[in-house]
Amino acid sequence: MKLLFLGDLVGRAGRTAVIEALPGLVADHGLDFVIVNGENSASGFGITEQILQDVLDAGADVVTTGNHIWDQRETLVYIERQDRLLRPLNFPPGTPGRGVNLYTARNGARVLVANVMGRVFMESLDDPFAAIDRALNDCPLGVVVDAIVVDVHAEATSEKQAMGHFLDGRASLVVGTHTHVPTADHQILPGGTAYLSDAGMCGDYDSVLGMEKDEPLQRFLRKVPGSRFTPALGEATICGVAVETDDATGLATVVAPVRIGGRLEPVLPPFWSSAGR
Amino acid sequence: MKLLFLGDLVGRAGRTAVIEALPGLVADHGLDFVIVNGENSASGFGITEQILQDVLDAGADVVTTGNHIWDQRETLVYIERQDRLLRPLNFPPGTPGRGVNLYTARNGARVLVANVMGRVFMESLDDPFAAIDRALNDCPLGVVVDAIVVDVHAEATSEKQAMGHFLDGRASLVVGTHTHVPTADHQILPGGTAYLSDAGMCGDYDSVLGMEKDEPLQRFLRKVPGSRFTPALGEATICGVAVETDDATGLATVVAPVRIGGRLEPVLPPFWSSAGR
Amino acid sequence: MKLLFLGDLVGRAGRTAVIEALPGLVADHGLDFVIVNGENSASGFGITEQILQDVLDAGADVVTTGNHIWDQRETLVYIERQDRLLRPLNFPPGTPGRGVNLYTARNGARVLVANVMGRVFMESLDDPFAAIDRALNDCPLGVVVDAIVVDVHAEATSEKQAMGHFLDGRASLVVGTHTHVPTADHQILPGGTAYLSDAGMCGDYDSVLGMEKDEPLQRFLRKVPGSRFTPALGEATICGVAVETDDATGLATVVAPVRIGGRLEPVLPPFWSSAGR
Amino acid sequence: MKLLFLGDLVGRAGRTAVIEALPGLVADHGLDFVIVNGENSASGFGITEQILQDVLDAGADVVTTGNHIWDQRETLVYIERQDRLLRPLNFPPGTPGRGVNLYTARNGARVLVANVMGRVFMESLDDPFAAIDRALNDCPLGVVVDAIVVDVHAEATSEKQAMGHFLDGRASLVVGTHTHVPTADHQILPGGTAYLSDAGMCGDYDSVLGMEKDEPLQRFLRKVPGSRFTPALGEATICGVAVETDDATGLATVVAPVRIGGRLEPVLPPFWSSAGR
Ligand SMILES: [Fe+2]
Ligand SMILES: [Fe+2]
Ligand SMILES: [Fe+2]
Ligand SMILES: [Fe+2]
Ligand SMILES: [Fe+2]
Ligand SMILES: [Fe+2]
Ligand SMILES: [Fe+2]
Ligand SMILES: [Fe+2]
Repeated sequence: MKLLFLGDLVGRAGRTAVIEALPGLVADHGLDFVIVNGENSASGFGITEQILQDVLDAGADVVTTGNHIWDQRETLVYIERQDRLLRPLNFPPGTPGRGVNLYTARNGARVLVANVMGRVFMESLDDPFAAIDRALNDCPLGVVVDAIVVDVHAEATSEKQAMGHFLDGRASLVVGTHTHVPTADHQILPGGTAYLSDAGMCGDYDSVLGMEKDEPLQRFLRKVPGSRFTPALGEATICGVAVETDDATGLATVVAPVRIGGRLEPVLPPFWSSAGR
Repeated sequence: MKLLFLGDLVGRAGRTAVIEALPGLVADHGLDFVIVNGENSASGFGITEQILQDVLDAGADVVTTGNHIWDQRETLVYIERQDRLLRPLNFPPGTPGRGVNLYTARNGARVLVANVMGRVFMESLDDPFAAIDRALNDCPLGVVVDAIVVDVHAEATSEKQAMGHFLDGRASLVVGTHTHVPTADHQILPGGTAYLSDAGMCGDYDSVLGMEKDEPLQRFLRKVPGSRFTPALGEATICGVAVETDDATGLATVVAPVRIGGRLEPVLPPFWSSAGR
Repeated sequence: MKLLFLGDLVGRAGRTAVIEALPGLVADHGLDFVIVNGENSASGFGITEQILQDVLDAGADVVTTGNHIWDQRETLVYIERQDRLLRPLNFPPGTPGRGVNLYTARNGARVLVANVMGRVFMESLDDPFAAIDRALNDCPLGVVVDAIVVDVHAEATSEKQAMGHFLDGRASLVVGTHTHVPTADHQILPGGTAYLSDAGMCGDYDSVLGMEKDEPLQRFLRKVPGSRFTPALGEATICGVAVETDDATGLATVVAPVRIGGRLEPVLPPFWSSAGR
Repeated sequence: MKLLFLGDLVGRAGRTAVIEALPGLVADHGLDFVIVNGENSASGFGITEQILQDVLDAGADVVTTGNHIWDQRETLVYIERQDRLLRPLNFPPGTPGRGVNLYTARNGARVLVANVMGRVFMESLDDPFAAIDRALNDCPLGVVVDAIVVDVHAEATSEKQAMGHFLDGRASLVVGTHTHVPTADHQILPGGTAYLSDAGMCGDYDSVLGMEKDEPLQRFLRKVPGSRFTPALGEATICGVAVETDDATGLATVVAPVRIGGRLEPVLPPFWSSAGR
């Protein structure tokens, strides 16, 4: 089956680009399942229920998040009724929402999506390795489900790579988010799991992490708070990763980056071209 | 002029690949100046004088480093006589060695290379922004020197991007190192400076940061030290970035990633092809 | 009952002082139960089985630890047979040893001792609040056990104070360790639990954390590794906290600091004087 | 001469206690110079000009601060006209205000006060060791000034102790702030400098760092933001340290803690009793 994962939408630039482009991408390339990380879609901080709905309406099947999950306070409430919004799985027991869930793709396939958060250079949470281990043990790839995608929202490349190897052979795709910069290390690991350290953001790359660059730069230089951070509004680059999986095993057969629009060098998966654009 | 920057050499796999490939790359593509980050070339920890010499002999003009600079204790001594080895500029006054230096390229051009280290999620050092600001003020691009390359050895993408914007228009290339994962955000910033958040390592990408994956993974899982970290020995991917600069201004005209061998998707700069491979 | 808790023994100076003084303290003041944090007793790094035995022979009933628990590799093995040595409770499942245990005091009372490690500015571990909550729920104070002592090995005063309030009314004593500096905030919290943010180390206070001060100071100044850290060998101050509990409830009736010898101002609990020294 | 240093005032409870008690303390004990850390005096976050004035009017000669210096935005402006308010010395060049200044005590003595901020587990600033070294080199104790007090606003006990030893013999008092918990390690270092790792806060000790304990505790437990932090309003303990210096050398002759009111065990310096309370 054909999967697409897009990294953190940042502000209006990022979410508009994705909402406009996604229907065409799904249609043109016959995508079976789309996941989008939405933790920065509301002015850079969290996600409102309206934005969530807009992203789902555009064709996303699931929206994952990360450390910004609660930036919009309404999320603590509406997440309970929105089973297509995931928060990191390794939050404490009792946290609203869910971190892993099973979905049905357009082609009828069963897809498990999980969202875990790293701990290196981040907040203290429960062990993401133990948490995802339990979730995947309950749901073996190729047996109970047809595809498994894990969004590893983390800072350190060491923790992301360790997670990739830890899940190699047990997931279709392990993809990092949070740094807002796409990495170029996409590969299929020895056990058959597609891996990418970071999907990059969907946002304006003439910025600092998708935010107007002046204020972040001033904070580095002067160590004095100035104004608020606001999203940069230049044309966004849509950044993500495409995977095709083997129907029998659920493992990845091909993996390639997706970059559309904005300042970054554009690239589409070579295995998409057969879809006929 | 034609510049090549290669990211952190990790262990035998990384340094051997670079030492073997570099003479051909320089010759085939007419490279004028080559910089290599060598902080992990000695079994993953630091760099010996012998390895430094081997890398220089292979065609590197300068070797930059980072937080691993002193892992080989001999470096504290020999760095004083090796002016082609740089350590981060923003170490305390009195630190052996130098963090910025002026070199002459094969084409006779004057090239300033600086190495600074970030502070976010890293050791407490002097301000890298102030340090590089002073260094570049002494040496304006296009006036005193023909090209300026800054290796920003840092963890956080925010700090690297802020540095890119801070130096935009004043350097030919600002390139990050340290995460050991290549990023795909190469671009020419609005002011004319080529930028890439991380060059990636030259090492085996079936690993955790270039080291055998079992021990790092066990430490994440069990929080108990096991054996030592040792470099992974699979075929390395040579990772870096190529830039061409305008002879008059020293600013970048084109920038593109370089990835050769090993597990990552190979790519050569399109503007290299004219060199006739 | 009469409890004594002593903070991190550092090196020869600290452990010798404690081993020599403890028998007299136990006898003179009729101490029912003594706990000692031993994580730095072997040259500053971890604890050998021989040192553990020496400390137990001197009168300690339990030895707690912290982040240095595995510095002596033999500890991974011998901890399994030494049920009077505790490691932090919130290490991952499967970690050798135990983090909480039930003991019988000299007066026949049942004493639960637990050792948890904080996460703020420390390594990523499982939630210490959830871990201690489960342990104490299994073992209510004044019902199943006569006293409960929790060693909170942590850096941040915020996390230690939060733990004190979290356990207030459920433990006899919540005492911090790890900073190697005694705090003066001993009090009985509103719910009846004695609290002290840090017991301080048993070691030479003309030092940096009990280690010879030259090398740590040089690392702050020069950011270059020099020689190894070695324990300072001046006369140690024995630092800790004394508590008396109510036999019926297990809650604290009095709490006071203990400081003996070395450079710090000496102090003994006023309620000890009745024991007739 | 007779010096008093009081730790971080937290909220209404802390500042009211100090403003009410300070005139009596100065009069009763003949204090020549009083320094107060005021970084949390405005509802726990920063200090307004009005509060600064109130604290100065009550008898403080200088108010030091720390990481909360800019929490009240007006401080960026009024600090320029308030030379009795210090911010950390090692902020970047160009930061408003000053980090070291010379004052005249009630007895006519010249007193240098400096405020530096640590970097371990704190924000990235310039080197506090180098900064204070330059400041004290300009102003030798016993030659140009009669007393020197350094407020080391820092988290880690290692950094504070290293600073104490670094300045030993060159300052009258090196005292830490920031942890909001008083330490009991007051001593005169071998070179004659009085040292205390942390003065503790002036605030309600039935709290987390002086703030109402429920919200901080919930954040530790649930990792979900709830309401704002607000200062605890129970009776404050005034916490600080008293020093007497030798008129000829400026070095310390005696040092002792001060704790008055609230929940902590009260203590006054024995050398104050001669003042006749
Ligand atoms: Fe994000
Ligand atoms: Fe994030
Ligand atoms: Fe490296
Ligand atoms: Fe590095
Ligand atoms: Fe310790
Ligand atoms: Fe410790
Ligand atoms: Fe404070
Ligand atoms: Fe502070």
